[in-house]
Amino acid sequence: MVIRPWGFGIWENIQRQLDDRIKATGHQNAYFPLFIPLSFLEKEAAHVEGFAKECAVVTHHRLEQRDGKLVPVGELEEPLIVRPTSETIIGDSFSRWVQSYRDLPLLINQWANVVRWEMRPRQFLRTAEFLWQEGHTVHATEEDAMRETVQMHQVYEEFFKNVLALPGFVGEKCPSERFPGAERSFTIEVMMQDGKALQACTSHYLGQHFAKASDIKFLDRDGELKYAYTTSWGASTRMIGGLIMAHGDDDGLRLPPRVAAKQVVIIPITPKADTAAAVMEACEQLKKRLEATHFDGRPIAVELDARDIRGGEKSWQWIKRGAPVRIEIGPRDIEQGQVSVYRRDQGPKDRITLPLDAAVAGMPELLQSIHESYYAQAVAYHEKLTRRDIRTLDELREHFSGDGPAGFVVGKWSGDASIDELLAEFKVTVRCLLPQQSSTDAQSQDGRCIVTGKPATIDAVYAKAY
Amino acid sequence: MVIRPWGFGIWENIQRQLDDRIKATGHQNAYFPLFIPLSFLEKEAAHVEGFAKECAVVTHHRLEQRDGKLVPVGELEEPLIVRPTSETIIGDSFSRWVQSYRDLPLLINQWANVVRWEMRPRQFLRTAEFLWQEGHTVHATEEDAMRETVQMHQVYEEFFKNVLALPGFVGEKCPSERFPGAERSFTIEVMMQDGKALQACTSHYLGQHFAKASDIKFLDRDGELKYAYTTSWGASTRMIGGLIMAHGDDDGLRLPPRVAAKQVVIIPITPKADTAAAVMEACEQLKKRLEATHFDGRPIAVELDARDIRGGEKSWQWIKRGAPVRIEIGPRDIEQGQVSVYRRDQGPKDRITLPLDAAVAGMPELLQSIHESYYAQAVAYHEKLTRRDIRTLDELREHFSGDGPAGFVVGKWSGDASIDELLAEFKVTVRCLLPQQSSTDAQSQDGRCIVTGKPATIDAVYAKAY
Repeated sequence: MVIRPWGFGIWENIQRQLDDRIKATGHQNAYFPLFIPLSFLEKEAAHVEGFAKECAVVTHHRLEQRDGKLVPVGELEEPLIVRPTSETIIGDSFSRWVQSYRDLPLLINQWANVVRWEMRPRQFLRTAEFLWQEGHTVHATEEDAMRETVQMHQVYEEFFKNVLALPGFVGEKCPSERFPGAERSFTIEVMMQDGKALQACTSHYLGQHFAKASDIKFLDRDGELKYAYTTSWGASTRMIGGLIMAHGDDDGLRLPPRVAAKQVVIIPITPKADTAAAVMEACEQLKKRLEATHFDGRPIAVELDARDIRGGEKSWQWIKRGAPVRIEIGPRDIEQGQVSVYRRDQGPKDRITLPLDAAVAGMPELLQSIHESYYAQAVAYHEKLTRRDIRTLDELREHFSGDGPAGFVVGKWSGDASIDELLAEFKVTVRCLLPQQSSTDAQSQDGRCIVTGKPATIDAVYAKAY
Repeated sequence: MVIRPWGFGIWENIQRQLDDRIKATGHQNAYFPLFIPLSFLEKEAAHVEGFAKECAVVTHHRLEQRDGKLVPVGELEEPLIVRPTSETIIGDSFSRWVQSYRDLPLLINQWANVVRWEMRPRQFLRTAEFLWQEGHTVHATEEDAMRETVQMHQVYEEFFKNVLALPGFVGEKCPSERFPGAERSFTIEVMMQDGKALQACTSHYLGQHFAKASDIKFLDRDGELKYAYTTSWGASTRMIGGLIMAHGDDDGLRLPPRVAAKQVVIIPITPKADTAAAVMEACEQLKKRLEATHFDGRPIAVELDARDIRGGEKSWQWIKRGAPVRIEIGPRDIEQGQVSVYRRDQGPKDRITLPLDAAVAGMPELLQSIHESYYAQAVAYHEKLTRRDIRTLDELREHFSGDGPAGFVVGKWSGDASIDELLAEFKVTVRCLLPQQSSTDAQSQDGRCIVTGKPATIDAVYAKAY
């Protein structure tokens, strides 16, 4: 996966704003090794079972010319795994950092690249290497660790809403979909426009599994040596894929303003040579004024596209890239003290003519309004494609066998071991189990699992997924 | 290498401030793959020769239990190299991105981890994995590419002075020390307190070597298809090692304010229970006021150390960590409207008593003064340990065979092929060749190479190095 500058700009904005939230909740960043000794991975049985099939393995540390061919030499005594996630290697450090209850909670986050070998890669959604943040924390009690797990999941939910403009089902993973080695895993499942679910972030309560595997013990207030409780939580460049597939339209990307590398693009319209200098001057003035204006606590990010290509081609490029606002200025606009404003959430020709001063002063509000418009559209689509009236396996199968986006089905789930297999026939999975309070609709129904027909009290989200 | 939060905070500050400078000079960040196919590396002969001996090689993509042991399976058809640097993999993308002179210059930077296998690792200075930024640019002409190479080197020089408070010799690498595949390499050699040189960053003019290896061609204005000229330049977590070894003293780290994760640490002095609440209140007030004050365009980073341990132990921890300023507040200080300020560039007991308001208002100036004090000390040490009066190989050998820090020797260099070998006897290398104008002292001398005695016009810096 190569992430080009416009896409990487999205990632930089995601990083900055998510990092602010991670730090505001008391976490500090650190950095741990890329390579994990094989023996570390083996310490947690479920963990290695879950990741063994997709590990890139380093076996040599040198290359040599032999018979005119470059070949790996210097075989390692113990192979190294390129981290697919860092519980075990970070646990090794934590076992030394944690000695006493005074060292807890230990709240660490890492921004890093990870590798999970992928036979069928898909840009941003499934790539062998991806970028992410992984939080790793250690706590004295189960309660503290669960509180952390839930807190970080709420941080993601707020971030998804206010930065990515993405709604989703927030819930718990069923046992078969849990993170390998976790006791409980929480997820946000976001609906893509093709009706499939994207698991967009996860937060795991790891119990004492990794503390025992890595020997993370502390001397408690009562003088006893105890195993700690750990959590981990992560979100990755997959979020960029989610943004693209949830907000995009036939014209290309539509970026929520808080993640766009450029929020406003100014396009000079210079039909005649004798007014071109005045137009450029007006554009530069406008750029300065907008950059002196703040949106969400930061200067508005402005691009003045002065390239020597046709204005129509420029507009089209910025539409495709999803820049939230385009402003055109031509000679007549200067005369009349006005500008032409185009919002990406409206049609490419829906011009709004505004007095120059109003365009500048109103820009933060305009950007916020675009954010809200994307969010409202995504919520409406999520609602439209969520069925809550399906009651049987036959109905479920029929629903997911039709053409077009099938979306999400909310319905009862009995937790029976046969469910996953029955659903696999038509490529559906249990995306998450919903907390009781948010599913009154389905709850009022008859309480039978829609897959097995057995008595059930828990509501689940069923969908095809990436 | 594990980078703990306090150390990683230094890296975050380095990243932010260097990234600002990289963007201000027109570069954009992007991201390229961690794994480089072996065949890419082979495209540039000098390059592969330079890196083959220290490449981590991925040969398998799966693990399987066999006879109760986890073993690598799924052998790759073509082994993958974990990037030691990214010229070849980025060149592959650039060959597609660059088509016409209109696409040039292409100015890209990447923040990433890289791996160069290391048999004798040394924390921050030589580690198998390290973090860095690597700039990669493409230009239409040799002149443009050389201008870029020099410009970025000047950016580093300014950054070293104004952020890291580090002086150094800025010069060009001699042919034997060039980056593998480069036509010209530039370096900053910083003196550590043990008198050794640290190559702290490099900037390379790559000519057309990598453009030819990766087939980066463009259609020029004249209608001809031409190979482009490329550059690359990088600085790494090694800078943290440089900071530690150049500024540290017997009490521990001394961090220049612009890289310290916390610039001011407030320590409440609470000898009596009945005044403790008032002291804490005063400390929190002071924290808020300092955080509302800006240093170098950002809020001052303040830590209020409210831990329940002895004040002396706290002070000592922050001294060791190198926090630039400590402020103590006790009951008597509150009565008198004053605080006790301790600068890390002064003795641990050198208290400055200041009225509260003056301490807040004067903090930016105080931080800047600490920066300048570290820089001045480093310059003085650099000057003190730079000899310009050594004329012969015997003198040179004797100088570098003594006890204690030998430092740098500036003297003539003839470029003779035998020089490196003669110097290797006493573990000295040519660190860099100095630009003519900055070496009038040595230049006025007799113009004989201090290693070979042959006629010479170029001045070089000789030293032992990390």
